[in-house]
Amino acid sequence: MKKIVFDLLNNDGGQEKAIIAAKNFLETNLDYSLILVGDEKKITSLIPVNLHNRITIINSLEIVSKLESPRDALRSDSSMLKAFNALYEQNADGILSSGDSASYIILSSLKVKRINGISRPAFMPILPTTTAKNIVVLDVGANIDVKPEYLVEWANVASEFYKILFPCVEIPHVGQLNIGTEKYKGSEIAKEANKLLSSPTNKFIFKGFIEPNNVINGDVDIVVTDGYAGNIFLKTMESSFLGFAKLIKGIFLKNVFTKFSALFVKNDFKKLKSRFDYRNIGGAFIVGLDKIVVKAHGGSDEIAFFNALNQIKLGIENNIIEKICAKSLAIEGNKNE
Amino acid sequence: MKKIVFDLLNNDGGQEKAIIAAKNFLETNLDYSLILVGDEKKITSLIPVNLHNRITIINSLEIVSKLESPRDALRSDSSMLKAFNALYEQNADGILSSGDSASYIILSSLKVKRINGISRPAFMPILPTTTAKNIVVLDVGANIDVKPEYLVEWANVASEFYKILFPCVEIPHVGQLNIGTEKYKGSEIAKEANKLLSSPTNKFIFKGFIEPNNVINGDVDIVVTDGYAGNIFLKTMESSFLGFAKLIKGIFLKNVFTKFSALFVKNDFKKLKSRFDYRNIGGAFIVGLDKIVVKAHGGSDEIAFFNALNQIKLGIENNIIEKICAKSLAIEGNKNE
Repeated sequence: MKKIVFDLLNNDGGQEKAIIAAKNFLETNLDYSLILVGDEKKITSLIPVNLHNRITIINSLEIVSKLESPRDALRSDSSMLKAFNALYEQNADGILSSGDSASYIILSSLKVKRINGISRPAFMPILPTTTAKNIVVLDVGANIDVKPEYLVEWANVASEFYKILFPCVEIPHVGQLNIGTEKYKGSEIAKEANKLLSSPTNKFIFKGFIEPNNVINGDVDIVVTDGYAGNIFLKTMESSFLGFAKLIKGIFLKNVFTKFSALFVKNDFKKLKSRFDYRNIGGAFIVGLDKIVVKAHGGSDEIAFFNALNQIKLGIENNIIEKICAKSLAIEGNKNE
Repeated sequence: MKKIVFDLLNNDGGQEKAIIAAKNFLETNLDYSLILVGDEKKITSLIPVNLHNRITIINSLEIVSKLESPRDALRSDSSMLKAFNALYEQNADGILSSGDSASYIILSSLKVKRINGISRPAFMPILPTTTAKNIVVLDVGANIDVKPEYLVEWANVASEFYKILFPCVEIPHVGQLNIGTEKYKGSEIAKEANKLLSSPTNKFIFKGFIEPNNVINGDVDIVVTDGYAGNIFLKTMESSFLGFAKLIKGIFLKNVFTKFSALFVKNDFKKLKSRFDYRNIGGAFIVGLDKIVVKAHGGSDEIAFFNALNQIKLGIENNIIEKICAKSLAIEGNKNE
């Protein structure tokens, strides 16, 4: 029986949607059990009795709050902390939460073991592009300061994830986000990382330095960068699309003619807006850890939570952690050769 | 007689549009002369004889090329280098070019004196927001590594520029672009800069850490950050809007109904797209120098070049350099108190 820990609480609303997603997941995945961290009363009332043998409830009503300092994540008796504590205690394979991102990154780093050969975990969302394909970008905020080797480690880990997320890609293309494509541009760390990423022994195709337009247009499958640039990139892309969508809405609401005109394109615009809300694509992975760690958006509904659980399942069924462990041991081995 | 040096050559096209802009500027500004660097034959044929007493021609046919290394900017005998050499030789007040940005930043740093009290020049474009206002962001690429005091110096310099660009603003609001608004987030340099920017002796209103959505929504007038984050921000915003615009075009071209629908909103969409092409708003300043240095976009037409010349004129007429010199001497004074 495979196990996933699921922190049901978050700041954006109640836990009902999360519980319904848990129920739906249990009903369709008979070989899975869930460790549910939340309001025991609500959980028992919403999960049918016939599924109770496959749930473990950890009662908690305390939502992790926005941090004043990173240490706060360990101080409060939040559902998120309880969920992380249950991960090894209950011998679970993965963990899902939709709570505060900063807390989740900190607790992931403190409470989950790193894979041998991976220096730092990285936050890796799946992002839309202007083409039909999706890409992954890492790191987008867990590591402000990086060392050159982190980027190679992340490219390797992300390659394994990308191949199970998008099985039609055999050898992923990796780009390094930088402030220019010329070799002399960027920090010393970025230039050193570029050299390491160019090594022919890597199991991905390295496309060199790329710029934000290459990411947005999906010119590569995997984007590696430090968490500072990655975070600015991600938030700028999201805010630009949301800002533009708001202005477009204004155009269509201008007068009776524009409102009429909107009727013909409304559905396509909705689809476009929804596609560029990256939160719809799936949970963000925190990679480099020996459990499958996924962060769902705080505003997730039962479908988003259900998909995030399936995202963890995909990792489990494909033995993603074992594959990365084997690979990073191989990288370590190379270093000693 | 005030003087502006104008490098007419660029990679995106011929120099005719630049020459026509020069002609139009001379015709409307009788107390200005221009030092034109470009093809002498074309210049003399396109500028009417009655204006020849207010132009100095420096013949050059060599466009600055994309750099392999920063030093290349000094090696070639480009029109841009000749223009910078003419700046002090001809005792000009400002300089305009639409050539390669990297070369322009390097030559600005090497060929133009810094103002006393300003540690590093910064690249400062004027950007659109989702509201009617425009903002300035610096640095967007001249300085990858910064010291905390740079950001304060830039905020002071940008405040003077902002007040002459947008005279209705008496005391500009400054925000510091960061990966989060919480005080514990960001690099040590960013946190230290935040403290310095918070000093009550500053002549601007500091709004603290801001994120990309605050920039895009125009929550402040001036955004300060290091050139790494600024560059990623600027290029991501631009690419997002261009990418979104392309997808929207696709929606309207879908079928006969959507094409019909487009008729009612076409003009507003064009305006929107044009507004978010920040290159239309004006040239980018390189600030912190004792001359007015403006970079026009490579794709500028005669109107864009004409506006960029007027942007330099605005700085000259408002004694922007003298104001900043006086202010930075005052800052220096404060340090010694």
